[in-house]
Amino acid sequence: MATLPVRRVAVVGAGVIGSGWAARFLLNGIDVRVYDPDPELARKLATVVDHARLAMARLLPGTLPPEGKLQIVASVGEAVRSADFIQESLPEREDLKVRILGEIEAAAGSEVIISSSTSGLLPSRLQRAMRNPGRFCVGHPFNPVYLLPLVEICGGDATADATRARAEALYRSIGMQPLQVRKEIDGFIADRLLEALWREALWLVRDGVATTAEIDDAIRYGAGLRWSFMGTFLVYRIAGGEAGMRHFLSQFGPALKLPWTKLEAPELTDELADRIAGQSDDQADGASIRDLERVRDNCLVSILSGLRRNDYAAGSTLRRYGEDLAARSAQSRSSIDESRPLALYAATVLPDWIDYNGHMTESRYLEVFGNATDAVLEYLGAGPSYVQQGSSYFTVETHIRHLEEAVEGELVRVTTQLLDSDAKRLRLFHSLLRGSDGSVLATGEHMLVHVDARARRSSPAEGALLGAVERLARAQAHLPLPKGVGRAIGAPPG
Amino acid sequence: MATLPVRRVAVVGAGVIGSGWAARFLLNGIDVRVYDPDPELARKLATVVDHARLAMARLLPGTLPPEGKLQIVASVGEAVRSADFIQESLPEREDLKVRILGEIEAAAGSEVIISSSTSGLLPSRLQRAMRNPGRFCVGHPFNPVYLLPLVEICGGDATADATRARAEALYRSIGMQPLQVRKEIDGFIADRLLEALWREALWLVRDGVATTAEIDDAIRYGAGLRWSFMGTFLVYRIAGGEAGMRHFLSQFGPALKLPWTKLEAPELTDELADRIAGQSDDQADGASIRDLERVRDNCLVSILSGLRRNDYAAGSTLRRYGEDLAARSAQSRSSIDESRPLALYAATVLPDWIDYNGHMTESRYLEVFGNATDAVLEYLGAGPSYVQQGSSYFTVETHIRHLEEAVEGELVRVTTQLLDSDAKRLRLFHSLLRGSDGSVLATGEHMLVHVDARARRSSPAEGALLGAVERLARAQAHLPLPKGVGRAIGAPPG
Repeated sequence: MATLPVRRVAVVGAGVIGSGWAARFLLNGIDVRVYDPDPELARKLATVVDHARLAMARLLPGTLPPEGKLQIVASVGEAVRSADFIQESLPEREDLKVRILGEIEAAAGSEVIISSSTSGLLPSRLQRAMRNPGRFCVGHPFNPVYLLPLVEICGGDATADATRARAEALYRSIGMQPLQVRKEIDGFIADRLLEALWREALWLVRDGVATTAEIDDAIRYGAGLRWSFMGTFLVYRIAGGEAGMRHFLSQFGPALKLPWTKLEAPELTDELADRIAGQSDDQADGASIRDLERVRDNCLVSILSGLRRNDYAAGSTLRRYGEDLAARSAQSRSSIDESRPLALYAATVLPDWIDYNGHMTESRYLEVFGNATDAVLEYLGAGPSYVQQGSSYFTVETHIRHLEEAVEGELVRVTTQLLDSDAKRLRLFHSLLRGSDGSVLATGEHMLVHVDARARRSSPAEGALLGAVERLARAQAHLPLPKGVGRAIGAPPG
Repeated sequence: MATLPVRRVAVVGAGVIGSGWAARFLLNGIDVRVYDPDPELARKLATVVDHARLAMARLLPGTLPPEGKLQIVASVGEAVRSADFIQESLPEREDLKVRILGEIEAAAGSEVIISSSTSGLLPSRLQRAMRNPGRFCVGHPFNPVYLLPLVEICGGDATADATRARAEALYRSIGMQPLQVRKEIDGFIADRLLEALWREALWLVRDGVATTAEIDDAIRYGAGLRWSFMGTFLVYRIAGGEAGMRHFLSQFGPALKLPWTKLEAPELTDELADRIAGQSDDQADGASIRDLERVRDNCLVSILSGLRRNDYAAGSTLRRYGEDLAARSAQSRSSIDESRPLALYAATVLPDWIDYNGHMTESRYLEVFGNATDAVLEYLGAGPSYVQQGSSYFTVETHIRHLEEAVEGELVRVTTQLLDSDAKRLRLFHSLLRGSDGSVLATGEHMLVHVDARARRSSPAEGALLGAVERLARAQAHLPLPKGVGRAIGAPPG
């Protein structure tokens, strides 16, 4: 898919969903004409495009094409006249959609695809008054359209197969994950599931069982974390363990009779259980339960780590937990012998630290050395709480020597020698050691300068911090200079 | 929460859930005694603990305490006798649970809390035959217990308030997010929602609308990504936009009558709509729709990026999309003038690149330089597809000079000069430039060695690659040496 199948798209109806479509098209280099009668359209649309631009720049730095051209136009006709593709996102009223589809057809090229964003209205009913209903389909996205990949494609009785295929190709080319809904049904697939959960949630509020916040928490700290990469069927396959999906269903069957929701379950006949088990086998495609567990855990670790960086939801729980663990570990740390290189940091080489050469990628070396530097600064009394008082150490120069390769899963640790110091400067020498045999994987030599963080200029350390630096310097003064100190690149091996 | 409230826990029943509990307790430094009649318990439990150990080491590197001691014992009595806390995870049969709770009580300390992992059986019924039912509650976790934070705490009629509070404190101390279920109900809160979605999914399979894989895709590529950090109420609050939750409900009300699920909705009375809107306001706690959109987008970017690293689900979609974009951008790239420093990489400084000093953290400099090196190698014909043929370039030495600070949101770009080269070596000099004014933020000098990736030893580049290197070297030979080349740390400023 090296070229885009369209160059000009019309967006008809630009509330939250239509604006999201406009942003996704624009950021893929497609020109967009937008029509919506909202007098505040320009402001609202600009906000959505700004959000999308920032998000996509973070998600795909450096690879997005030049943006398409955005035009806000005054009529449906003007929007669709020269379009290669038309996305309709009007309010969810069948009569309104049918009427505007007529207006679109009157002005648009006769073979141009018209796709509706409806969440659940039936395409057969929406297309019934069209002159060329074969070029109409549903393309149902999810908010925010510029970030979530799912788009459900559903045809009506009169939709041509080529229309579905061309819509799929377009959506795929702009980064989406099309799901062809093979049987036309109210709510398609996704919204049937969402709506069942939503209605159960409304009952819980109505019956005073829980508040909206408690209901949201019941999802986002638990099953919601799994649902971001595995649906319920695969999750339950794993829960069934080695005995398989058929066994899980036989165990779970009785619970379908329990009053655990107001929704009655279908009868779990042998035929239905066999069908589910067979489809689940196809879906797993040979992956063992252990394989699936590994994928699940790896994805959960990535997701929880990502949420921690945002300090939100389960990420906040994890941040607080990590701080508790660090506090407990500090309480239990025995006194440190300053006359030897400090050993304050260890880590496991994680799968996502590995690059296409099959070894730890270079920036992770500096990440490990940076964390070790932070640990040394924390030890000296210049950690984050010191920084909050207005001073800090900044690294001004770094020299890394790569000596051996680190591979996935091994434990590595850092020892640190203070080579030189005065009130303004620290010169640190880190050695990254293989945990198993203590061999040196890399060295990092770093010059740090003490700064007044408000003025952003160098300033002398004072008081307790300077005392701690001087004490460490005295304690380590007798240590020999490590191999590789003071090297320049291109110098002969030393 | 600097100390743990318990030291020894009994796990009674150790299928998937009980084993997950055992792993979570052990990794928090708590001793665990496990009883389960499964003859394969030891093997299965070891697998779960191994999985958990790997996952937690990735999630919280360097901060976990020494593991607790694991003992598999031969009876319920032996498991609970000296325990400070008892977690029951037997199969979901009320009669079985009631009987074993009797055995537990007979051997355990009289005030020790007994918590049941039941997914939805009523605690009032489980505790009805106990001598001291006040110390019993439900603590319902989610699989995998060692990673997912949610635990629903639910008491029965006879449960003491102190029991709920002590259970909450324990669960919180081991990194969990307790949710107090205030009103006893079958399925508590989470499983009512999960069960409604599950039963709707079973109907879809039964009615031949979709397969298990299609149903799972309908969640994991769309709403599931949001549910990992925001529940449905907050998501719909955002969808309602500036007009608020009350407005969203009035718009959405009619859809509750549509046949979008087999579950009937409650009547959306004014009273219910007011209650939901009020609770939603409390939940948002003053955050504007724009604030919530920003949090949502930031979390989605982190989650999608995390899944891309795992090349799974929406992460695979994103990886393919990124590759398409890169291919398109390569096609459209105009011919490059090799007589000037190459400009092949640009990036935006992202929020999670910023450290506690408020500027771009040091390891991101090397990440940017590493990406620029990859772009140069790709340009020369030594990218990932060359590596797959068995050769590569490895960085052996790096020197970074930090000259100015980079702040969040700014565009930065890298230019690259080839300082020196032969068949085995490339010496690159990167300049990281501020996009707005072209000032130099940092420089990176890198020595790369061409290697036979199978033998892991240096080897000469040949053929087209060597030709490309020599052509670039000739074209750049006239360029003056950049400032800062060949520096060693500690050398006087040059």
